Amino acid sequence: MPPEETITVVFEPGGQAVQAPPGSTLMEAAETAGIVLWAPCGRRGTCGQCRVIISSTDGCAEPSAAELEHLPQSEIEEGWRLACQAQVVSDVTVSVSPRFAAGKAQVLEMGLLERAAPAPNVVKRRLQLPRPTLEDPVADLHRLERALGLSTGTLNTGRRLAASLPGELRRHDFNVTATVIGDTLVEISGPDAGEACCGAALDIGTTTIVAYLVELRTGELLATASTLNPQATYGADVISRLDFIRRQPDALDAMHRTAVQVTNSLIGQACDEAGVDNACVYELTVVGNTCMHHLFLGIDPSNIAVTPFTPAVTRALSVPAARLGVDISPVGMVECLPNVAGYVGADIVGAIVATGLDKRSDAAVMIDIGTNGEVALWTGEELLCCSCAAGPAFEGAQITHGMRAMTGAIDHVACRDEALVISTIDDAKPTGLCGSGLLDAAAVLLDCGLLASSGRLGHDAADVPASLRERIAGTDPNRRFVLARPETSAEGTEIALTQRDVRQLQLASGAIRAGTELLLAEAGLARDDVSEFLLAGAFGSYIRPASALRIGMLPNVPADRIRSVGNAAGMGAVLCLTSVQARAYATELARRARYVELSARLDFQEAFAEAMTFP
Amino acid sequence: MPPEETITVVFEPGGQAVQAPPGSTLMEAAETAGIVLWAPCGRRGTCGQCRVIISSTDGCAEPSAAELEHLPQSEIEEGWRLACQAQVVSDVTVSVSPRFAAGKAQVLEMGLLERAAPAPNVVKRRLQLPRPTLEDPVADLHRLERALGLSTGTLNTGRRLAASLPGELRRHDFNVTATVIGDTLVEISGPDAGEACCGAALDIGTTTIVAYLVELRTGELLATASTLNPQATYGADVISRLDFIRRQPDALDAMHRTAVQVTNSLIGQACDEAGVDNACVYELTVVGNTCMHHLFLGIDPSNIAVTPFTPAVTRALSVPAARLGVDISPVGMVECLPNVAGYVGADIVGAIVATGLDKRSDAAVMIDIGTNGEVALWTGEELLCCSCAAGPAFEGAQITHGMRAMTGAIDHVACRDEALVISTIDDAKPTGLCGSGLLDAAAVLLDCGLLASSGRLGHDAADVPASLRERIAGTDPNRRFVLARPETSAEGTEIALTQRDVRQLQLASGAIRAGTELLLAEAGLARDDVSEFLLAGAFGSYIRPASALRIGMLPNVPADRIRSVGNAAGMGAVLCLTSVQARAYATELARRARYVELSARLDFQEAFAEAMTFP
Repeated sequence: MPPEETITVVFEPGGQAVQAPPGSTLMEAAETAGIVLWAPCGRRGTCGQCRVIISSTDGCAEPSAAELEHLPQSEIEEGWRLACQAQVVSDVTVSVSPRFAAGKAQVLEMGLLERAAPAPNVVKRRLQLPRPTLEDPVADLHRLERALGLSTGTLNTGRRLAASLPGELRRHDFNVTATVIGDTLVEISGPDAGEACCGAALDIGTTTIVAYLVELRTGELLATASTLNPQATYGADVISRLDFIRRQPDALDAMHRTAVQVTNSLIGQACDEAGVDNACVYELTVVGNTCMHHLFLGIDPSNIAVTPFTPAVTRALSVPAARLGVDISPVGMVECLPNVAGYVGADIVGAIVATGLDKRSDAAVMIDIGTNGEVALWTGEELLCCSCAAGPAFEGAQITHGMRAMTGAIDHVACRDEALVISTIDDAKPTGLCGSGLLDAAAVLLDCGLLASSGRLGHDAADVPASLRERIAGTDPNRRFVLARPETSAEGTEIALTQRDVRQLQLASGAIRAGTELLLAEAGLARDDVSEFLLAGAFGSYIRPASALRIGMLPNVPADRIRSVGNAAGMGAVLCLTSVQARAYATELARRARYVELSARLDFQEAFAEAMTFP
Repeated sequence: MPPEETITVVFEPGGQAVQAPPGSTLMEAAETAGIVLWAPCGRRGTCGQCRVIISSTDGCAEPSAAELEHLPQSEIEEGWRLACQAQVVSDVTVSVSPRFAAGKAQVLEMGLLERAAPAPNVVKRRLQLPRPTLEDPVADLHRLERALGLSTGTLNTGRRLAASLPGELRRHDFNVTATVIGDTLVEISGPDAGEACCGAALDIGTTTIVAYLVELRTGELLATASTLNPQATYGADVISRLDFIRRQPDALDAMHRTAVQVTNSLIGQACDEAGVDNACVYELTVVGNTCMHHLFLGIDPSNIAVTPFTPAVTRALSVPAARLGVDISPVGMVECLPNVAGYVGADIVGAIVATGLDKRSDAAVMIDIGTNGEVALWTGEELLCCSCAAGPAFEGAQITHGMRAMTGAIDHVACRDEALVISTIDDAKPTGLCGSGLLDAAAVLLDCGLLASSGRLGHDAADVPASLRERIAGTDPNRRFVLARPETSAEGTEIALTQRDVRQLQLASGAIRAGTELLLAEAGLARDDVSEFLLAGAFGSYIRPASALRIGMLPNVPADRIRSVGNAAGMGAVLCLTSVQARAYATELARRARYVELSARLDFQEAFAEAMTFP
């Protein structure tokens, strides 16, 4: 049988070449090449975000209806296609715009983390044991237990290690290195075994995955590695990915394997950077929203997608790393922090651990604004949590020129001396608009009167500076506000905030606000009863509180009551790595937290409708 | 390459035929045929117990030096050989005497077991769960936890079950059967799953292995199965087997696999008898001496053989059955009860659990007389344990016509109306002498004056009845007392108690007595301070207290203070199966027990020397 004909697809700027069967999509070819394309809609052709340019229009089949909808004829003639739609028919080179490709996202520093003396769950110790005598003939395991200062009968072990213990102790003349995880002896080796005793913390965001490598003996952060969540190729938000699984049942396994692979890759990178052997990494703590948690463990999260949004499991789970395929020590453990509900995940639990939210004497609110918004309210006595579907607008999806917070993203917009001032990440030429820029832009437009409280763009107030007014282009309903003209942008195309973008922002911001208001109402608190509003997560750290207040995303409180707390979820995972107390605290608070389900509540619908109006 | 020439070896009376390579021993061929031959010396050719008859003297190579020592020329000409020595050279048929083959040993009933309401570690329940609603959207695992009446957050599970949980619950419309071991959900199935929820208890004796099948919901004993420990083919006692491992390192793995295989076979038999699917057996509790414990788990017990007799592990161990190859439910667990020291094993721990020895208000002694003797003394305040190497004499090894307590064994010897009266198990023609018969015979001879307190046989007292005196045959040092003449025995050969046998008995009995005395001395108690002496184990149950007292195996107390408690070790294992409290008690008492090491103590040597003299 002759080999099936394949087509060579080359991806630029990296130059990766792959063989693809005819009829496969550019997205599939990219996947084969290890290139992750941003596909917020889950490859349905509805978001138009997976734009690429092909070297020759002959390289792919005729554009699909979805492509014709998203791409003007002029762009199609230039070679623009949607990667999830375009099917290869002959050898072709594909250019991937950095705006749509995976890139190294900004990772927050661990600023907030208060370092206590480490009390990790893993202990690795070099020991010189007394040799057995007739006066002291205790069992080998008990001898180790004593040397480790543990109470009698508390050190456990597995059958295999028990089997190798007598030989190892005597081969090294009772001068050994012992590793204990929890109450279990997991490793015994000679006196020359390295003493490195590391752990890793993993924060699986819907969009970004970050791994932290920590030396457990000191609590020192050795290295950080991050990447776009490769599951993004199945959809930007949780719901898109769940839909994907409902349509293609084998996608669950693929997403699970993908999550484990990228975890291994991140841990590998971090170990390389720190010069640590990954066999010296004994524990991996994991936070993420409930869906990411389920996908990481290969648990079907489908029921989270549909009412009543039921997860399979919320409690903390311990899984042997080897059984999960996580490439740390073969005796290592993966410790998944507990979730609270289908849409209140271990990420918010981690963030509460990191900030000690419910250990305060005053009332405080924490809002984790990721692809999904999660709000936690500590009343001083009770911990309430809810979730509000903010959607991926803050991550740049569903926004016409949206992008994640990467090089070239417009992250700050202001009006100074009646002129528009924009800044971009890394001061690069602008490529698109990220979430913090989106908020700023809306706040500026509200301030100057070009945006009505109803959300109508181009509302013409009396005193709008001309330099701003002239940036309004197009007519209703396609009106837009130009942030960067083609000649100043990185790709020679205009970057604008559209009327549609404003509607997306209203939905996202309104959801966060309504969730927050509902929790306050549920607890019988007014906004002024709350001492602080903590903003967690990457997005929450980069936005300007004044803009968030201006668009009404937060209750109307003085700006100094709003504080960014960085990647608190990741910090919580690190804390749980270095402190058994923090881990117990996570379990306890997840158990205590009262989940408030908003989706079916009329008062939520009302609050949401109200919050849609800009102040 | 032509296939290697093999030799056909047929075993009678079973007719099993196997192919053996030339030069392999009859013992090895028997092993291939699944026939267990009794080899107390561990195949060294020193005990002479693995006697078989070959059909033609040409079938095997010339007798070894060991065979020439054990077998008179006349017997060799009749075809008698030692199976561990004789090497096959051509096709041959081998007859195995029942006296030397494995047989179904007597198994004690569970008489002593006080039945409390069962509180097993395994719970299997049929549940109709309320369906999730927006008012009650808790995680699937938590829903189960609630239905099982467990506290929030206490029900754990593994990754795999978590992954299948959402599908299973919904496929069966939340009408399911759930199985929980300890705090872990291990199995979820439909409403039609059988409700049988069984456990098995395993008592691994050096000589005999017994399995008990129990319905955990009721505590009912469903079936019992037992067999000769097939490791007997590597030696009758612990030391012989340990020596075997030292000589042939791969023997450890072979003995481990053998132990697991025989366990599976016994559980299979018991399940067949009770009509229970072995997938409904969720836990296996295991008792046995420390060496049997180690071998069962594949842990090298070699260090137990040499001073200071250090085991690898004494604490209770839990091992997934599947990982050990134990053929119960694939999610089942093997729970090995704790040991105390190298020669005070989980068997004595089980026996203490079964008898509640250390819950009494008065002082009591328990003696488990197996191949190894273990003594436990409860002073009323403290639990002391020791071990004394009684040797396998009580099991019939090292005794000229010794055998285990099986059909045809002389188990009772008395003198009535100046005539010797013997009885045999199952009233069969006598085949040999088992432990209880051995004690009785010595007691009768001491009473009538034919045995001196020094242990000299044939000592001629004045008033010995003629009918007994004429049974003395041979001359010093080969003097013997004939118990059964050739014409009355099953095999047409004389059965006698020899001077050498008496010496073996003195050693065994003296060791038990010395150990008991030393524990009493250690605790500062006199024999009269002890309310009861409990005799545990098969041998302890069959001997007559009067005979044990007569030969001085026990301190001189009134016979009514001596009580047999049956197979207390096995009963303890069953109790730990049906009661989590009993299991916790086992762990606790093993931790509290004070082990007294006798081997290096001068006072033990003195007590031993003294106890060698019959009273």
